[in-house]
Amino acid sequence: MFRSLRRVQQFNCKLLTLQRVSDSAKLHVCTSRMASSEYRIERDSFGELKVPADKYYGAQTVRSTMNFKIGGPSERMPIQVIKAFGVLKRAAAEVNKEFGLDPKIADAIIQAADEVAAGKLDDHFPLVVWQTGSGTQSNMNVNEVISNRAIEILGGTLGSKDPVHPNDHVNKSQSSNDTFPTAMHIATATEVHHVLLPGLEKLHAALAAKSEEFKDIIKIGRTHTQDAVPLSLGQEFSAYVQQVKYSIARVKAAMPRVYELAAGGTAVGTGLNTRIGFAEKVASTIASLTGLPFVTAPNKFEALAAHDALVELSGALNTVAVSMMKIANDIRFLGSGPRSGLGELILPENEPGSSIMPGKVNPTQCEAMTMVAAQVMGNHVAVTIGGSNGHFELNVFKPMMVKNVLNSAQLLGDASVSFTNNCVVGIEANRERINKLMNESLMLVTALNPHIGYDKAAAIAKTAHKKGSTLKAVAVEMGYLTEEQFDQWVKPSEMLGPK
Amino acid sequence: MFRSLRRVQQFNCKLLTLQRVSDSAKLHVCTSRMASSEYRIERDSFGELKVPADKYYGAQTVRSTMNFKIGGPSERMPIQVIKAFGVLKRAAAEVNKEFGLDPKIADAIIQAADEVAAGKLDDHFPLVVWQTGSGTQSNMNVNEVISNRAIEILGGTLGSKDPVHPNDHVNKSQSSNDTFPTAMHIATATEVHHVLLPGLEKLHAALAAKSEEFKDIIKIGRTHTQDAVPLSLGQEFSAYVQQVKYSIARVKAAMPRVYELAAGGTAVGTGLNTRIGFAEKVASTIASLTGLPFVTAPNKFEALAAHDALVELSGALNTVAVSMMKIANDIRFLGSGPRSGLGELILPENEPGSSIMPGKVNPTQCEAMTMVAAQVMGNHVAVTIGGSNGHFELNVFKPMMVKNVLNSAQLLGDASVSFTNNCVVGIEANRERINKLMNESLMLVTALNPHIGYDKAAAIAKTAHKKGSTLKAVAVEMGYLTEEQFDQWVKPSEMLGPK
Amino acid sequence: MFRSLRRVQQFNCKLLTLQRVSDSAKLHVCTSRMASSEYRIERDSFGELKVPADKYYGAQTVRSTMNFKIGGPSERMPIQVIKAFGVLKRAAAEVNKEFGLDPKIADAIIQAADEVAAGKLDDHFPLVVWQTGSGTQSNMNVNEVISNRAIEILGGTLGSKDPVHPNDHVNKSQSSNDTFPTAMHIATATEVHHVLLPGLEKLHAALAAKSEEFKDIIKIGRTHTQDAVPLSLGQEFSAYVQQVKYSIARVKAAMPRVYELAAGGTAVGTGLNTRIGFAEKVASTIASLTGLPFVTAPNKFEALAAHDALVELSGALNTVAVSMMKIANDIRFLGSGPRSGLGELILPENEPGSSIMPGKVNPTQCEAMTMVAAQVMGNHVAVTIGGSNGHFELNVFKPMMVKNVLNSAQLLGDASVSFTNNCVVGIEANRERINKLMNESLMLVTALNPHIGYDKAAAIAKTAHKKGSTLKAVAVEMGYLTEEQFDQWVKPSEMLGPK
Amino acid sequence: MFRSLRRVQQFNCKLLTLQRVSDSAKLHVCTSRMASSEYRIERDSFGELKVPADKYYGAQTVRSTMNFKIGGPSERMPIQVIKAFGVLKRAAAEVNKEFGLDPKIADAIIQAADEVAAGKLDDHFPLVVWQTGSGTQSNMNVNEVISNRAIEILGGTLGSKDPVHPNDHVNKSQSSNDTFPTAMHIATATEVHHVLLPGLEKLHAALAAKSEEFKDIIKIGRTHTQDAVPLSLGQEFSAYVQQVKYSIARVKAAMPRVYELAAGGTAVGTGLNTRIGFAEKVASTIASLTGLPFVTAPNKFEALAAHDALVELSGALNTVAVSMMKIANDIRFLGSGPRSGLGELILPENEPGSSIMPGKVNPTQCEAMTMVAAQVMGNHVAVTIGGSNGHFELNVFKPMMVKNVLNSAQLLGDASVSFTNNCVVGIEANRERINKLMNESLMLVTALNPHIGYDKAAAIAKTAHKKGSTLKAVAVEMGYLTEEQFDQWVKPSEMLGPK
Repeated sequence: MFRSLRRVQQFNCKLLTLQRVSDSAKLHVCTSRMASSEYRIERDSFGELKVPADKYYGAQTVRSTMNFKIGGPSERMPIQVIKAFGVLKRAAAEVNKEFGLDPKIADAIIQAADEVAAGKLDDHFPLVVWQTGSGTQSNMNVNEVISNRAIEILGGTLGSKDPVHPNDHVNKSQSSNDTFPTAMHIATATEVHHVLLPGLEKLHAALAAKSEEFKDIIKIGRTHTQDAVPLSLGQEFSAYVQQVKYSIARVKAAMPRVYELAAGGTAVGTGLNTRIGFAEKVASTIASLTGLPFVTAPNKFEALAAHDALVELSGALNTVAVSMMKIANDIRFLGSGPRSGLGELILPENEPGSSIMPGKVNPTQCEAMTMVAAQVMGNHVAVTIGGSNGHFELNVFKPMMVKNVLNSAQLLGDASVSFTNNCVVGIEANRERINKLMNESLMLVTALNPHIGYDKAAAIAKTAHKKGSTLKAVAVEMGYLTEEQFDQWVKPSEMLGPK
Repeated sequence: MFRSLRRVQQFNCKLLTLQRVSDSAKLHVCTSRMASSEYRIERDSFGELKVPADKYYGAQTVRSTMNFKIGGPSERMPIQVIKAFGVLKRAAAEVNKEFGLDPKIADAIIQAADEVAAGKLDDHFPLVVWQTGSGTQSNMNVNEVISNRAIEILGGTLGSKDPVHPNDHVNKSQSSNDTFPTAMHIATATEVHHVLLPGLEKLHAALAAKSEEFKDIIKIGRTHTQDAVPLSLGQEFSAYVQQVKYSIARVKAAMPRVYELAAGGTAVGTGLNTRIGFAEKVASTIASLTGLPFVTAPNKFEALAAHDALVELSGALNTVAVSMMKIANDIRFLGSGPRSGLGELILPENEPGSSIMPGKVNPTQCEAMTMVAAQVMGNHVAVTIGGSNGHFELNVFKPMMVKNVLNSAQLLGDASVSFTNNCVVGIEANRERINKLMNESLMLVTALNPHIGYDKAAAIAKTAHKKGSTLKAVAVEMGYLTEEQFDQWVKPSEMLGPK
Repeated sequence: MFRSLRRVQQFNCKLLTLQRVSDSAKLHVCTSRMASSEYRIERDSFGELKVPADKYYGAQTVRSTMNFKIGGPSERMPIQVIKAFGVLKRAAAEVNKEFGLDPKIADAIIQAADEVAAGKLDDHFPLVVWQTGSGTQSNMNVNEVISNRAIEILGGTLGSKDPVHPNDHVNKSQSSNDTFPTAMHIATATEVHHVLLPGLEKLHAALAAKSEEFKDIIKIGRTHTQDAVPLSLGQEFSAYVQQVKYSIARVKAAMPRVYELAAGGTAVGTGLNTRIGFAEKVASTIASLTGLPFVTAPNKFEALAAHDALVELSGALNTVAVSMMKIANDIRFLGSGPRSGLGELILPENEPGSSIMPGKVNPTQCEAMTMVAAQVMGNHVAVTIGGSNGHFELNVFKPMMVKNVLNSAQLLGDASVSFTNNCVVGIEANRERINKLMNESLMLVTALNPHIGYDKAAAIAKTAHKKGSTLKAVAVEMGYLTEEQFDQWVKPSEMLGPK
Repeated sequence: MFRSLRRVQQFNCKLLTLQRVSDSAKLHVCTSRMASSEYRIERDSFGELKVPADKYYGAQTVRSTMNFKIGGPSERMPIQVIKAFGVLKRAAAEVNKEFGLDPKIADAIIQAADEVAAGKLDDHFPLVVWQTGSGTQSNMNVNEVISNRAIEILGGTLGSKDPVHPNDHVNKSQSSNDTFPTAMHIATATEVHHVLLPGLEKLHAALAAKSEEFKDIIKIGRTHTQDAVPLSLGQEFSAYVQQVKYSIARVKAAMPRVYELAAGGTAVGTGLNTRIGFAEKVASTIASLTGLPFVTAPNKFEALAAHDALVELSGALNTVAVSMMKIANDIRFLGSGPRSGLGELILPENEPGSSIMPGKVNPTQCEAMTMVAAQVMGNHVAVTIGGSNGHFELNVFKPMMVKNVLNSAQLLGDASVSFTNNCVVGIEANRERINKLMNESLMLVTALNPHIGYDKAAAIAKTAHKKGSTLKAVAVEMGYLTEEQFDQWVKPSEMLGPK
């Protein structure tokens, strides 16, 4: 009794750490590595703050980590957004240089921004998604990192804001309200083009190859999960091919509005404090940097106040998820067995099955894919709710929305590749089983209708079902036809299309 | 005590009827109207059934009403689906006639099908959505009604299946599995074209007119729901115009795949029991009947097994709902008051306000619209789940899916018209209030930066905020500028765009 | 060509009616039945209105039908809400009588309200859900109907508001803001008690009986949809029993907060214009009228401004839907076949199968149930979004929220009864098939581990899998044991529990 | 032109890294740190694999990282699940020791498992959520880490499986199918108790204190977002207090079923290969280790095949999110301004406002909270879909489901603390503004009804509204009463409750 109590107490202490992946715990680990001398002091209008000496970020970033202890490291602003900010800040610096920004400062910003875009400074972006709904703090995080890195390049002192000021120079002609949605669109379009679409295209090609490979295998169809008339396995797979083909089309159809960039709208969409032409030049610079057809948004008010474009894209991703759920479900059921399932497909074995159940292949890639599909459907609802709750000149669910859209695009793209490589390309048809099921099928009786009439055909089928016998045996037994006639009339291969 | 108990008992009896809008109750009302002589007896393979003498439907319909007592009259198969079936059955009869169906029978089917399409036989379709997931029973309901009505036209006996058989003639070359999805697409496209798009276009025009009308009214912007720099009321409304413009584009972008028809795929997509060309001819006949660009689906397997096209359209409707929620929310908040709200807009009064609170205008059209938006978002999840759960050659969530898509399209279309007519066209700007708020705004201080520097401008704003005074008064009092200079430098009309 | 064009035009005319189940069309049908003399003229503060002479409702109801042409008859305020209003208005009249309302007036209101509660006046409630978000117009519809019916009882003139005034008497001590949520809770609790819970209990009993019936049937288990170690069919069904048992518990656990009534809060929750004790007396009267444990809400501000109680209940219904989806999916897959599926269960045939495919039983009840489940999950999202978007002292998504909660409760209750009666009670085990699959299973090899070691057992299983042979044959062939030993050691009946 | 093209090419190279937060990139960083000599070779039935020499995990973990390259580090199995596995494995070792497991081995397992539970080995769990849907690979990851660490403790060789075997000893009497759901429940219950409930309780206390602090401040109410009759600010906050109070109750009400543990069910729920009593002992050991009232699940079949308990809890979290959305929305609107909003609340300033707009306080904590609420609602849909798609004896959406439930619980808990500390406790009432709005309100006219009648009162209000004047001025001007009478009769403080 006493021991048990003590054990509980002992354990409760452990639980203090067990219970959470807390920021504070992680920060503690990090910070304990450096002595107090490893800070520099920065100030903002709220007072002094300690900034880790080895970080490029500044006071506003540190303050955000203090005010938003929500969710821990896995909830950080997606790195794709940070990198997109790098692209945007570089483009803005180029255009600002055209409009008169000191070239020395502009070039340093460009160099630093490129490093952000290239992922060289990832450790300097500690903020979580759950911050200001405009993403202001992440914009400032980027401004601080780029200005300090640019200062360093120019030989200045970190935190001095001299000669490169985070607001006056890095954020010039910009506002969080237009830069953050611009970064959202750059990050999303990039993820779609470099992860999602290639993944879907790979899957499409693999399924198309299987559809072709299986085109001559005739099998029983199933409707309502019940036996039905035959089709070829290639035809069955052609539906999946079509679904993935349309998945690609759906995603592409949503992109035109994602290519529209808010940059140049500044605080409320009017473009206050920008120069005429700034918006267009920034968009075209970003287009040339990324190779994607970005344009300036025709209406900046809409581009700040609403994120319908991301809701629309998320709707396309949701439809892709629906297709994936269907395909992966079918494949695992068709591959179920080895003895007590449908057993028409043989799925590749990728990992040891159960230690006690040899021959068991779990359709693990299908499971990963269907979990991804469910997640994407959930993400879509989060995006929908965030998108619908903007007010007046600004939607303030921006970080949450982009997090979910990026997550959906990445998961679907990655899962498509994994599913293709580790499952689809290795699928084999169990021809023996397929033939057996097809030949035993009572549905083939349909082919007799024109020859002996529906009523006799029905009688054959019913009798065969009751007796557990074959159609041929029963038909001959009942005296309606000969074995030869049966073989001549009942040809599944002639039931695969219109006449 | 005794009285109260008795009252409860008495009431409990009432509750027997109170508790439900049950089929059975309704059926009782209907059926009690006719004597037992008012039935005819029909048979199906399960035995005899009484069919109301004044109904065109037959045994399979009656059996469905017995087996699926779920949800009552408001859960009936949407009448749009029934009418779409009328169009399809007419088209199939025309094509079957070309392929050799007895012209007399074909013409009678065509006449009867036209009556279904025209809504003349609506009372003959009692089935609910919650039936077979392929919609088989509604397809049979249509077949029975058309065959009996055609029999009547040709002078035959109801229920005799002679000379027009529900399966052999009306359903010729068809299966529930391809007709129901065809009817889903016809009904949906029709609803989109005749209800949703006209509604959205009407709303778009009304908002565009308001944006133009309000283009010279300068007002304070709001970001994070907080005061920000100015924009014109016309600019603010231009965001709504853009959202509705894109709503229309989004819906249209989803239509190509809705125009694809499954007809000709029959039971599993192979087109078994159809003639080559049947599918294409039926689609083109439907196109010419409806004036909509329907085509035969390039892959019938996909068209039966998946309804991604409806999930995609539902995703577009979900995005429209998101836009509507934003617009209606903004308008009710901008029109809030009359004394203690934002009060920038004056919304039309459409009904008596509270009997005790004169001057109170409830933004009831905004409320209907936002409720519709929430419903559409919920419908979308139902459609998504149904769409993802198909198996093998057939998705069996068809009736539920089409019900929700039609509901969303209709509600958004109707609500757009109602919102336009009863709210948007009557919105007036409260110019006095808008000016007052704009002139009191501390954000205008931004305009002083280039003249007196950021620090002095900030000091003015902070002092004005603390004192509850105006910028101009404080600026003059602090000696930074003269009244004339303030008026010259602080011009909201010059803060509405880039320079 | 010309003909075809004409046909199109002709058809387009038809489409004017085809395209919609519009209010106006329906109203036209109704109203065309009565001559213009069949109206009475009523006034509200907005002017004169024609009210159908045979209707008890008045000007505010008519005005609502003019302002909210959204969605047609199937979108009417659920009749359960109207009946609940009858209960509430009766209770309020009783309590008002105690507090001094003229007994003659009170008694007439009570009689009229009882008629509303009993469903005798259902035709007098034409309003749709898509109206004011507080449900004000439906509250006024009820007030108008009850006052006019009470006036009629007392020999007065319809529309005269004398001697029974809709606001001063029927709505006395009430506001739409507290009566509508009260009616929401009464309607919901009634539906839960009279439809949902009995349905679930019926299903629970039927599944429990099957679990008992099947307790000795040993079958192969399936994990990851793949063959696994055995369990009894009774054990498999016991999971469904447990799910339904917990479904009932989950619904009941959500009810305490649904029993809390807002009545007595009036306009903003303060209870302005009520008497001390009114709220409590109304709640207890409603409790005694309905036999359900209603109490007055402890915080009326929360009861008007939020409908978390319905979101919570909807969450419970969502969980029930999840359970139903699992159970119905399992049953249709276990009953799949007759030849090419799992075939372990024989599901009752309820309707003719396909005309060409004898022996095909479609699991139509499973399909209705899974469609219902998807709908409930969608409804839940609509309820969630509505619940989250209240502002200040009033949530204005009330009609939409209650519509969805009632729909979910009714569909789940009805579908449970239908599924039980038409499917569960008639399920039979296909013992032959179950035995066959079980005996062929490679997973039984597990039982040999203690006797011949894991390695030899694995070799047996792998060989049997490769050869398509049985474990016993291979084991004997490989010389690891005798036939007798195999029979002695491999006993599925001893693999059903811990030792 | 040439330069620009080159720049694009240059940039495209960068994009190769920019585009993704890829596993491989990250792995590359990690792995590049160690030479090829820093691997050990392990084998599984699929062949040889290189395992990093400094990791405790083994072949099955490495193979999973190769087969499931989906989503990168932020998609790792939540560390709470890993720690919960530590607790479970320790408990199982204790019970296995009782049942005869070699005490030396058992004690080493216990020590290693405690280290896992304490978070000391977090770096050894690289697997992502998107793996086998049963979580098998994470169970094996844990088994491998504990066995290797235990081997190390006992002086053995990593990877030798001797003397502590990952399957035979660490996983003894267990299966992934029962251990993973057990870990899901332990992790969830722990997160709820250590993060969510404390967060909600803190918020509840802070809101209750504000409600008390504000109890004497009378303000205008708002319904339909429009002016209404008064209430106290304390009453308004009391609704929030009630919502949070019920949030806590809702979460607690869902816990009983989360306390039920699947352990002891093994592969399909029968408990094959366990000893009688194992399940109960493991549950009670876990209860005493964690201090939470865990029990063994009464039906293991349900506990493996369904995760309704998590769907139910997620429904409660969804309701909490709905409450949070309402509260945070109200607070940001009530605190809107400083000049052009409602301005009744003064929210704490936590970070620098806009550099150009002094006095602007963005309600950033409200924004974080509402984003969290939207995320939780989305997570809930993912959980719902996963929960509904289980088949037969096993639900295979386990990792996805627990990820979302944990995320929701953590975000709501963390955000509650952040919102409380950085917003709620610092809220001040702007008494001057509140008084001004309240005194200007036209709704106070209601108080005159008993004295001068409704008609005269209405006339006063309408005139005041039209003229933009005060009720008192107009009332006196119209000659209906004196200034003294007005002051005597119109007392907002007497409008706050029933009489």
